[in-house]
Amino acid sequence: MTDADSDWQPLAAEQTGREFAVTRWRDGESSAVVVDTLAQEVPVALVYNGISHVVMLATPADLEDFAYGFSYTEGIISERSQIYGIDAKAIHQQGNGQLRGIELHIELASAQFAALKEQRRNLTGRTGCGLCGAESLEQVFKMPAQANIPVPALSLQVIDAAMAQLKTLQPLQQLTGATHACAIVNHQGQVLQVREDVGRHNALDKLIGSLLRQSGDSGELDFTKLWRQHWVLTTSRASYEMVQKVTMTGGRALVAISAPTALAVSLAQEYDFLLVGFARPGQCVVYHGALAALG
Amino acid sequence: MTDADSDWQPLAAEQTGREFAVTRWRDGESSAVVVDTLAQEVPVALVYNGISHVVMLATPADLEDFAYGFSYTEGIISERSQIYGIDAKAIHQQGNGQLRGIELHIELASAQFAALKEQRRNLTGRTGCGLCGAESLEQVFKMPAQANIPVPALSLQVIDAAMAQLKTLQPLQQLTGATHACAIVNHQGQVLQVREDVGRHNALDKLIGSLLRQSGDSGELDFTKLWRQHWVLTTSRASYEMVQKVTMTGGRALVAISAPTALAVSLAQEYDFLLVGFARPGQCVVYHGALAALG
Repeated sequence: MTDADSDWQPLAAEQTGREFAVTRWRDGESSAVVVDTLAQEVPVALVYNGISHVVMLATPADLEDFAYGFSYTEGIISERSQIYGIDAKAIHQQGNGQLRGIELHIELASAQFAALKEQRRNLTGRTGCGLCGAESLEQVFKMPAQANIPVPALSLQVIDAAMAQLKTLQPLQQLTGATHACAIVNHQGQVLQVREDVGRHNALDKLIGSLLRQSGDSGELDFTKLWRQHWVLTTSRASYEMVQKVTMTGGRALVAISAPTALAVSLAQEYDFLLVGFARPGQCVVYHGALAALG
Repeated sequence: MTDADSDWQPLAAEQTGREFAVTRWRDGESSAVVVDTLAQEVPVALVYNGISHVVMLATPADLEDFAYGFSYTEGIISERSQIYGIDAKAIHQQGNGQLRGIELHIELASAQFAALKEQRRNLTGRTGCGLCGAESLEQVFKMPAQANIPVPALSLQVIDAAMAQLKTLQPLQQLTGATHACAIVNHQGQVLQVREDVGRHNALDKLIGSLLRQSGDSGELDFTKLWRQHWVLTTSRASYEMVQKVTMTGGRALVAISAPTALAVSLAQEYDFLLVGFARPGQCVVYHGALAALG
């Protein structure tokens, strides 16, 4: 079915938009054919030591970050050095040459690969979306590490500053209006890093992966310290899985532009995690924890 | 880990909101503690003839519709009568009695169950979200049935009428501001059925399931005919999987309030499917197909 595969050249998020001729209807009656840029979602297969593990639909940018972040939040690796290398291949359809998907070949350390194979053997079969492969209710509630460390002190001013800055750091969203962003932000509301994707979980995995890749074996950047001291801002809703990914990697605070779910709030209560939703200029709702008074 | 399980009593969407005390910040400085209603997402395990197949996070309403719709869009059943019965059990946490999840025990006809077991045997292990369990790129592009049937004729007026009506038919969204809705709509813009969920794919599966359940063995309602002649309106983005679910069940048109992705447009082109995005009062963008001129 597929023919040529070739090396996939890394792209920045804003390079992944694709142009289409569309008909735009306005003012209830007039229509015009215009060119519109759409966000791509591409099937991305994560292949560990030659074995295909999972296929995710993702924006084809920052895929190395995605491979590191997904492997980390799924518990396949516990540190950066357990991945030896990543090779991205584009798979094209026979005949028309259309991109069918991207394979990320991840070279995993042998201990982690053995653990992954054992985990796969213990599962009886195929599973689906929703909770990244959990097949029965017992598997759903992976317990994140207990963190008795302080929650970063945030004020409404700091959140406002970060949101204003984030808006200018979403090139793909500006082109397409269809993507989410996740950012890590410091106490002053300064955005330190942003990743975009059509999927909010992917954007968060890419953000985590990008920081993990910068954390050197020789300690240029200490991922755990950075992640605990700062906070995460997302343009999406705060679903259970968003809070879980931040919590289980040691983060202490999530601010979402949209609503949280009840399950996300329960998790925030359990881990005394700062959870803020509906963050808009000058306003927000605190679902667990407290904001600092304005300075 | 879990103790008591009990029968799960069916709930309407608006009964599933959960109240929390939250701190609302307004006007950049004042805060107040208020009661807010949040949408629930609950782990829902689909268990076929005693074997746990998948866990999805879903709004705990209309779960029988969900079981039928998911089974149908996943190709586990091809008609309503292949499910003999559904029994919903609530699983509570030992000690605090909190709801941990819901098990949907689905009694499947033996031929369909044998096919499902065979399918599971053929897969080597665990898979994750994104594409409902597809583990390698070859599995991703399930080809929907070729449909050489006409696309429903829609005008901007009809879309506007349906959107105005849908707004009044989303009780859970009105309570929580956090849920998606999918509706089936006729040529006059009249909404025939709506389902809500925290997840857009779940809302669509519930819609399909609700129609399937009403389609009698003795032909009170012909699902295939109904689904082909009408169109689907969603409050979400039009991702690839939304277009795929509508197409592979025989539907011919999807109107989304938000953006489509490039992959969704490619699929619409391939199947000559009417795909409309950014539907707002008096305006929209047609990504494939054409709207009828205004009457």
